[in-house]
Formats: sequence, structure tokens, C-alpha cells
Amino acid sequence: MSELRFNFVTGDWVVIAPERAKRPEDFKITTKKEKLPAYVATCPLCAGNEKETPPETFRVEENGKWVVRVVPNKFAAVNPETNVIRESSGIKKFMTGAGMHEVIIDSSLHNVSIATLPVKDVENILFVYKKRFCDLYKIDYIEHVIIFKNHGIRAGTSLQHPHSQIVGTPVIPGRLKDRIEGALRYYDDFGQCLYCLILKEELNDGVRIISQNDSFAAFIPYSALSPFHIWIFPKRHSGCFGSITDSELHDLAKILKEILERLYVGLGDPDFNYVIHSLSPSECAVKYFHWYLSIVTRVTRTAGFEIGTGMYINPSIPDSSVKFLKNIKL
Amino acid sequence: MSELRFNFVTGDWVVIAPERAKRPEDFKITTKKEKLPAYVATCPLCAGNEKETPPETFRVEENGKWVVRVVPNKFAAVNPETNVIRESSGIKKFMTGAGMHEVIIDSSLHNVSIATLPVKDVENILFVYKKRFCDLYKIDYIEHVIIFKNHGIRAGTSLQHPHSQIVGTPVIPGRLKDRIEGALRYYDDFGQCLYCLILKEELNDGVRIISQNDSFAAFIPYSALSPFHIWIFPKRHSGCFGSITDSELHDLAKILKEILERLYVGLGDPDFNYVIHSLSPSECAVKYFHWYLSIVTRVTRTAGFEIGTGMYINPSIPDSSVKFLKNIKL
Repeated sequence: MSELRFNFVTGDWVVIAPERAKRPEDFKITTKKEKLPAYVATCPLCAGNEKETPPETFRVEENGKWVVRVVPNKFAAVNPETNVIRESSGIKKFMTGAGMHEVIIDSSLHNVSIATLPVKDVENILFVYKKRFCDLYKIDYIEHVIIFKNHGIRAGTSLQHPHSQIVGTPVIPGRLKDRIEGALRYYDDFGQCLYCLILKEELNDGVRIISQNDSFAAFIPYSALSPFHIWIFPKRHSGCFGSITDSELHDLAKILKEILERLYVGLGDPDFNYVIHSLSPSECAVKYFHWYLSIVTRVTRTAGFEIGTGMYINPSIPDSSVKFLKNIKL
Repeated sequence: MSELRFNFVTGDWVVIAPERAKRPEDFKITTKKEKLPAYVATCPLCAGNEKETPPETFRVEENGKWVVRVVPNKFAAVNPETNVIRESSGIKKFMTGAGMHEVIIDSSLHNVSIATLPVKDVENILFVYKKRFCDLYKIDYIEHVIIFKNHGIRAGTSLQHPHSQIVGTPVIPGRLKDRIEGALRYYDDFGQCLYCLILKEELNDGVRIISQNDSFAAFIPYSALSPFHIWIFPKRHSGCFGSITDSELHDLAKILKEILERLYVGLGDPDFNYVIHSLSPSECAVKYFHWYLSIVTRVTRTAGFEIGTGMYINPSIPDSSVKFLKNIKL
């Protein structure tokens, strides 16, 4: 018998469907992935090909060579623009696509990924996330900044070179407004941060925690939307990723690398996205919202049911998936 | 320069990104689709293999043979259950997965699709949609019914035999509640149905209308979420698909077949989903909500930006896509 579980963060029910459930190991990727070289002459993101990208906006160097680089996206969704126009007439409401869209090149090497990099290299990437996140919020027409990674074709990227993206939009996404409203309502109803409560209950239950350290816990939530849908929550309450400290950045690098390595080894380098859900630096201190990182492993596809209802059918049991991931030998 | 357009139905901004835009013909499917036979011995949905499905719940016959059949889904997301339990404790809120999940077999033949069927056969399929839609709403624990089609692997199906699905859930999807709230607010603010206004303005503009007849108009909305995202709106205001009349059913069959044939010919049989967005029969008469059919052509993939923000980046210009579709010779 299937079960409906309510996801308090998304505000919607999830169908946990054991009739459709596979064993965790059945999600393993069966298509053999091509072995990549460390350098590809035609790759615009490889070290040595720097002239193929627009001029960089930031870099981290080690021993005189860059290890992480930030460049404007050649195919940007939004672009720097000082004259931002908003107009509205009937159902036609539009505005200039002003903003910033950058590519963060995670490494000078073509054939690595966070799963296979040393923790200190992951820390460099996260440091750049924080730096550009705070920088973009200083631009007056940027209202929201999102950091994400698309890994693999099913996750929406065709670029093999390891990279992340950061986009600053001139609007606050409607869904974020809904989530803020939901979180505020929860706070007012129950007197506590919904996200802090989720973290506390998941830590108490223990069975869905994959890993934790001083600053973070990684778990597949009770009401996960899809197989291997993983949340990494900071233990210290804060509304904004930009408030992360140096030692927390180190702890996040450790846990993110470990989780992605578990997926890499256990499922055979599956495609995935991750995103950082956060408010702006001016909202660091709000009591009802809590930033976090969400990993969406792309081992299933959304279909008409999800498109039509917004609800998800999850053909896996969160507890079993966690057991599987914890048993992976690293 | 890209442009943000507000979609009043979803309540969110869409990025129309010409820097990323392709010409409409560039979305044409390049992988050659396998030519299918009319009958496949191992297909549980083919005529002759009826014993491979659970007992049917409905059929339409012609000359003593079935032309459309409805059977319970073998891998149902929800199941009939009279004892529906709801429980809640902290962040654990769950209920029995009670409901109905049926497969509507569109044809006895394996190698047809709505794009290639005669209009009278499409009318039979839509008649069955209406019949089961109204039947499922009579079950006391069913609160919402969704009808959809997944066509092709990227649309989430592995079954080649032409089929649709209908699911009755014991809850009202959170997103539907949000849309009802949004539509009600619009109605109260502006004194008219948002959907009627969209239809009126799209008909006035004309440039995004692909086709229309007495009862329906098909168009790519001004703020389409993705390339070839098509809405078919009934011209008569009604909150519920179940209120469709016989002559409207005929008109819907005509326009749906034409649109899918234009996609089939123009883009080379692309994968797509369609869904019917509707309230329940008890809400037919509400003034602020309007049922409609939405086609989502799966020629692009959602990635981290969409997952993280809920906003969409549409790398196509609605007006150009419409022009392309209208020029297809049928």
C-alpha cells in the first residue's frame, strides 16, 4: 500500500509508492560513462584555453595557477543592464532581463568532480560560491541569487568540464515567496523555525541521516520528493548562506564531498543537480527561514502527474536508500 | 537582451532568453524513431493480450471490438482503500495512499497516436476521459482527479502502446490550492476570470494563436514556460472539464489532433506530456477558475535554475514557434 507524506517545506504531499519501488541498487546507472582526459583542446573551461571564455570576474590561485575561475556565461539567461524597465498592460507584464549569470569553473582539470576532489579543493569552490553570492547581492537591481550545479545530461548540462553556476535575478521567485510565507506561518503557529524542527526530528530519528559533523547534517528527508533526494542542513540557524563561517565552509566541503562520493560509488556517477536555497544577506537574521543545500539525483523522470499536480511520486523508501548509501565503502 | 514575462497562471516570472534561443526548427528530433508494428505479442495493452492487464473498468466498442479500454494501473501510485487513515506528529504527517490510478488504452493498435488517428477515434478517447473523470469523483475519498498523457521516454514513459492515465488522489494538490487562491484574488481585484482575460487578449493579439474553432483556441502563451508549451482553452467559461458537452468534445478532439499532428510533423514526433487542469464537478460553476489542457513538449530539460527557483528559462520566442507550427503542411 502506498503512503502520502506531507512535505512541510514544499507545502505539498508526496506519494511514497512501494508498488513502484525499486531496491536502492536498482537505481545504479547501467550506461557506461566515457573515461575523460584531464585536458581537452576544444573545452573552453580547461586550463590553457582561458581566451575562449569572456574575461573572468574572479579566480582563486595556488602556486601561481588558477584552481577556480569565475566567468560570465556566454549563453546568459540574464545580463548586466542599468536601465531596468518594468511594464504591465493586461496579461502582458514584463521587465528587462537584467542580472548576472556566471559560470564557476570548479577545477582546471577536465576529468574531476567534487566526488573525486580532495576536501581542500571543494572548500575553494565553496569559498568562491560565498564570495560571488555576496558580491552579486551588492548589485542594486539584483533581488535574488541562486547557486546550482548541473551534473550530466539528464541534469541539463552538455558541458563535461566540472562547473557550477550562479544567477542573480531582478525578481524574487514566486515559489520562494510561497515558501517564505509558509515558513513564516509555521513559525507563527508553532513558535519555532520549521527547518530547525525538521533537523531536530531527523537527528532524533537517526534512520534517515547519512552523515553529520559539527556544523551540518545530510539526510534523505522523511518526505523526499524522489529517490536519493538529499538535504544538507546547517546546524546553526541562519536565513542566509552568505553568513557561513570559515570553519562551517570546511565542514560543508567535507560533508558535500562525502555525500557526492557515496552517490558516485554507489550509483555509478549518476546525473544530479544541487542548489543552495537561501535568502539574501539582509535577511540573515530572520527567525523563520533557514538556508540549506538540496541534491536532486536524476535517476527518475518527472511525467504528467508531476506536471499536472505539482505532487511527486517517489518510487523509493527514504530509510532504505539511506541504509544503502551508508553501507557504501569509500 | 533577455526579457522576463510574468505568467499569471503559475504566479511566476519566466525568462525569455534570446541569447539562448534556437530557431523553432532546431528543436526537431534528430534521433530516428523506430517504426513500430500494429501488434506486439509481449505488449500488455495490445488487442489480443487483454488477459495481461487487471480486469477492465470501462471500454468503448465498435463493431463488437474494443477501441478504447480502461484498466487499473499494475504499478499504481494510489489504490482503492476504504479505511483512510490520516496521522500527524511533528514533521511526520501522513495518510493512506487511497485513490484510483487507471490506464486508458487509447487504441487497440500499437503503432498509432493522437497525431495519426482519425478525429472520431480521438473523440472516443476524450469521451472516456470525461466518463472516468466523473466516475472517479463519485468515490468518497477522492478529492482530486488528474488526466494526463506521457508520450515518449523523455516524457516519463517506457510503454510504446498509446495510452493515457487518470489518477484520483485523496488530497487536493498544494499547487492547485495556490492557483485557486491566485485566480480568486485576480477575480476579486479585476472583476473577471483571469483565464477568460488571457484567452480574450491572446485572441485579440492573434500572433500566438495556432488554431481555433467554435469551442476552443490553442496557443503558445505570451509567457510560455518552455519551447512549444501549448495551452488549449475552452471558449465557454467553466471550472470543470466534466461539464464539456458533446459538441465541445468533438471540437476538442479536432483541435487536439491538429496540434499534436503539427508537433509530430514539424518536430519529428517529439516526446510530450499533456494534462487537463480542472476543478471537481462540484466546482463547475465557480466564476474565477477555468479548466484547460496544457501540452508540455519535452525538447529541453529542466536544470538547477528551475529546481532552485521554480522559474523557467525559455530558450524560444513564443511568436516564432507559433509561426513555425502554423506553416507546417498537414
